[in-house]
Amino acid sequence: MSGYFTEDIGAQELQERTAVATDIAEAVRTLIADTVLTEVDASAAATAIEHIEAAAEILRSRQLPDDSFGVRFNTDGTKRTWGNAVIGTRNPIAPPLDVVFDDDGLAWAEFEMGPAYEGPAGLVHGGILAAILDQILGSAAEHAGAPGMTGTLTIRYRQGTKLGKVRAEARLDRVEGVKSIAVGRISTAEGTTAEAEGIFILPRWARESGAADKIRKALSDG
Amino acid sequence: MSGYFTEDIGAQELQERTAVATDIAEAVRTLIADTVLTEVDASAAATAIEHIEAAAEILRSRQLPDDSFGVRFNTDGTKRTWGNAVIGTRNPIAPPLDVVFDDDGLAWAEFEMGPAYEGPAGLVHGGILAAILDQILGSAAEHAGAPGMTGTLTIRYRQGTKLGKVRAEARLDRVEGVKSIAVGRISTAEGTTAEAEGIFILPRWARESGAADKIRKALSDG
Repeated sequence: MSGYFTEDIGAQELQERTAVATDIAEAVRTLIADTVLTEVDASAAATAIEHIEAAAEILRSRQLPDDSFGVRFNTDGTKRTWGNAVIGTRNPIAPPLDVVFDDDGLAWAEFEMGPAYEGPAGLVHGGILAAILDQILGSAAEHAGAPGMTGTLTIRYRQGTKLGKVRAEARLDRVEGVKSIAVGRISTAEGTTAEAEGIFILPRWARESGAADKIRKALSDG
Repeated sequence: MSGYFTEDIGAQELQERTAVATDIAEAVRTLIADTVLTEVDASAAATAIEHIEAAAEILRSRQLPDDSFGVRFNTDGTKRTWGNAVIGTRNPIAPPLDVVFDDDGLAWAEFEMGPAYEGPAGLVHGGILAAILDQILGSAAEHAGAPGMTGTLTIRYRQGTKLGKVRAEARLDRVEGVKSIAVGRISTAEGTTAEAEGIFILPRWARESGAADKIRKALSDG
């Protein structure tokens, strides 16, 4: 499996790198929302683009040699999935979800869905909700010790999800052989808006591998 | 329904606005990928952030009065869903999909999935694939004259989808009363990677409304 790395980074450097990653990604998230809402003319847009390209050039001046962030393990066993499209600290398209795991097995996150997540007017795109549910169901299964890659994902939409504050939650429901079944939902102040069931499967190559722990941890990133 | 607008914009102005929207969004998409892959230090990051904030300030200097782009109809009957998270021309988190409708009812799009769409290392996030399938299935149903909001979406993942060139396709399978059932799939050079079925439902308020045409067109945006 390419794209999985172990890196020996000290605690302080990791903290510093995390702060930099968070700051850049947050600035770009703001820019994304402003891009969706802007009505500037071609001249102002050209000046904005100059700034955007200058920023991109700086960021490109030192970058990963790979085409993606991958999954990076720290020597303390924690992992960084900073490129993940839903939870990635350094990925501006991720809200990002900061998933909390309660002692009773509930995984949950509360986050803001701004204009970049729109589908029908004023509502969160149903596909974005599916992406969030896929991630949080997988995270719940992993945290409960039954990780896997998504086999089947079923979403039932109950009502529109207004842009704004959104909550996602999930838990492992049961394990059937190599299948982990997780359930979850999306809710807003108006109640449940979507429900999901996901079947997560530990692939054959991972089951047969000796390095199961590490690989299992790496598998529930979407 | 808030967030639906009709705007009287001439053909030339619309063309110019589209060019500006496309240019800004493309620049931000490049910046997003560079953000995911960057390894710059705090000092370089700070300079990049200054540029990003300068660009955002320019874009904010003239913006929509609403909190989202919504769905905007042109007087010629075409619509703009520029804020849409999957197909939005001015939405940097959208790849964006440029969906082609063949005469035989097939809706399809080919697009690049860069580092911002990662889930497992080197692979497209399963949830992002779900988002794309939700959109293209809904678009196929709409184009076939049977639009609706997503009721149930089921995705079956067959194998990992490598980051890079991806194809999505869908078609309306059948109509059962107010339900439109569409099917589709994701594929890469390695074959089919995910299959989907979506049930799209025309909401009661739309069925009972006199302004059905306009509302129906507006309904399949995710």
